[in-house]
Amino acid sequence: MRVADTPHRTIWPSPTEPAVVKIIDQRHLPHRFVIEELRTVTEVCTAIREMHVRGAGLIGATAGFGMHLAALSAPEHDFAGFLRKAAEDLIRTRPTASNLAWAVNRQLDAIGQETTLAAKRARAFAVACEIADEDAEFCRRLGEHGKEIIAEISRKKKGGVVHILTHCNAGWLAFVDYGSATAPIYAAHREGIKVHVWVDETRPWLQGAKLTAWELKEEGIPHTLIADNTGGHLMQHGMVDLVIVGTDRTTRRGDVANKIGTYLKALAAHDNGIPFYVALPSSTFDWTIRDGLTEIAIEERSGEEITHIRGLSETAEMTTIAIAPPDTPTLNYGFDVTPARLITGLISERGIMAANEEDILRLYPEQR
Amino acid sequence: MRVADTPHRTIWPSPTEPAVVKIIDQRHLPHRFVIEELRTVTEVCTAIREMHVRGAGLIGATAGFGMHLAALSAPEHDFAGFLRKAAEDLIRTRPTASNLAWAVNRQLDAIGQETTLAAKRARAFAVACEIADEDAEFCRRLGEHGKEIIAEISRKKKGGVVHILTHCNAGWLAFVDYGSATAPIYAAHREGIKVHVWVDETRPWLQGAKLTAWELKEEGIPHTLIADNTGGHLMQHGMVDLVIVGTDRTTRRGDVANKIGTYLKALAAHDNGIPFYVALPSSTFDWTIRDGLTEIAIEERSGEEITHIRGLSETAEMTTIAIAPPDTPTLNYGFDVTPARLITGLISERGIMAANEEDILRLYPEQR
Repeated sequence: MRVADTPHRTIWPSPTEPAVVKIIDQRHLPHRFVIEELRTVTEVCTAIREMHVRGAGLIGATAGFGMHLAALSAPEHDFAGFLRKAAEDLIRTRPTASNLAWAVNRQLDAIGQETTLAAKRARAFAVACEIADEDAEFCRRLGEHGKEIIAEISRKKKGGVVHILTHCNAGWLAFVDYGSATAPIYAAHREGIKVHVWVDETRPWLQGAKLTAWELKEEGIPHTLIADNTGGHLMQHGMVDLVIVGTDRTTRRGDVANKIGTYLKALAAHDNGIPFYVALPSSTFDWTIRDGLTEIAIEERSGEEITHIRGLSETAEMTTIAIAPPDTPTLNYGFDVTPARLITGLISERGIMAANEEDILRLYPEQR
Repeated sequence: MRVADTPHRTIWPSPTEPAVVKIIDQRHLPHRFVIEELRTVTEVCTAIREMHVRGAGLIGATAGFGMHLAALSAPEHDFAGFLRKAAEDLIRTRPTASNLAWAVNRQLDAIGQETTLAAKRARAFAVACEIADEDAEFCRRLGEHGKEIIAEISRKKKGGVVHILTHCNAGWLAFVDYGSATAPIYAAHREGIKVHVWVDETRPWLQGAKLTAWELKEEGIPHTLIADNTGGHLMQHGMVDLVIVGTDRTTRRGDVANKIGTYLKALAAHDNGIPFYVALPSSTFDWTIRDGLTEIAIEERSGEEITHIRGLSETAEMTTIAIAPPDTPTLNYGFDVTPARLITGLISERGIMAANEEDILRLYPEQR
């Protein structure tokens, strides 16, 4: 998508240096647009763990390129051992993200099929690129499917603005391109459908304020930033036509783990009869589990994300401020689970499903 | 309540200077404890509008003292006109707070009963003190009633810790003393019942992080600060036994306007079968309205509260940082309305009521 009118992806291999992968270091957004070069799997782990990159699809693509860098630097005498260690390190960086293990295992399988060192390395690079390209293509396709939901509401409103609420950043910054929750919005906007996005700021990390607001602005989509507390009131007063969020892990029956606070918005949408959709590339499904509430481990993050906030000072310096008394105890879960009963539908690159096992398996018969 | 082990109120007349009212300037909390002197009704209006003081009861008490300062400086030849203007200015500062008009009108009625200038001024001072004392006494009493709810849960848990979630600051800092939502907690704690409070940070103004966490710490109550997004997850996992919040305006049938985001917590409590109580001194009732959703005007505040956050920098200076792209459009409603159907009960100084007109009028027969 566009940054200052130039098309970008969130991750790409350097065209000139084979051992360099480039990412947008998202910690500096929206204040500065910084491109970071990654050269080792350790740097990749740091980039994922410390959220230089974040978001389901992008974490997967970054892990894919991490395995490529690992394959490049793995010594011939202990290639398998080095790669296994790299895989473990990568998977441990963000326990809730299912794309992480998915991308790493896809690399291990593919590399394992090759016999020579050169072939293994070539394959690792090819698969990393494949994962990234697929991610972009899947987001593009789910955008086309999801666009129909927005178009239908637009028709009902006789071409009036369709107000869409989203939580966190499931935008192109969370993937390689297009995004999941934003893909239908970008697709609708391109076709001239009038849209307006309510952007939850998404505490504690403020992905909405820092990332979603920024990417919508760069793309020219009308939007309004709100506190996470505000969505319920807007829904009570007919100011929201549709909610679309992303997901980090989705169960067979359609329970959805997404950024903490998603469940509260789903409750409010349900209470006010507003459609609540979850957009996801298929890689986000975890086919091994059904009950999201008991079977998904929820990542606990540093309490500093609650007590301290980073932003741009009046003198244009990146500054961290404390907003609570010193040594205040905190608890910082990264995700919550929205049960399928509160979800109107799921949108993937294969189409639109109701959030139940029967309808999900209609589009994924190979998982029966 | 205690600040560094010394008992304090949030507002009090200077014992030595008759034309001075003192407040805790809450904008500096939790980083600095600053006492401000107010000398004119204009200063009082600024203190209310710019949230040096905030919270239902304290706004009322401050307006009461504002009318006292107005009466002191009103010229004899236009006493009534000056007071009417002061009353209008005070009422306009925070449109959602019903205690504001209530305190101002109580002063106008009382002052109107006196005939001499000296008597009017003496009466205005007496009524201001009365409003403040009553506020403290009503909070103390509602704490005694609410304590029984906590004690009952403690008994069911065989003396285990009772986990109470609260939103915003309905603590003693929002009143003259004790608080509303916190009064039952303080009362239970004093009796040795084990309590632990989940403190919603309460964006955008962060009253939870800045005020509730601070007052619980000063009072020695175990607590944990969480993002507003977290409460739903905690409730899904049995980590919340009870929700108690305050209210800025309550209708005859028990609809409750409180800090934006309260409605979302009420939905989550309802979805998980957790009791949801609202604590209020009677002055918070607006007996003229029934339907909170259509009849309560919701204050819209500056978008800067969303895009900028104030706190203590690493060099211990109060600093404002931007957390969103420049010129991001925002919408900042201060309150939302929780419909009575989601509320287990109301706690006032008169006792505990179900949130319906019949049961409310049982304790307020004079409003039939």
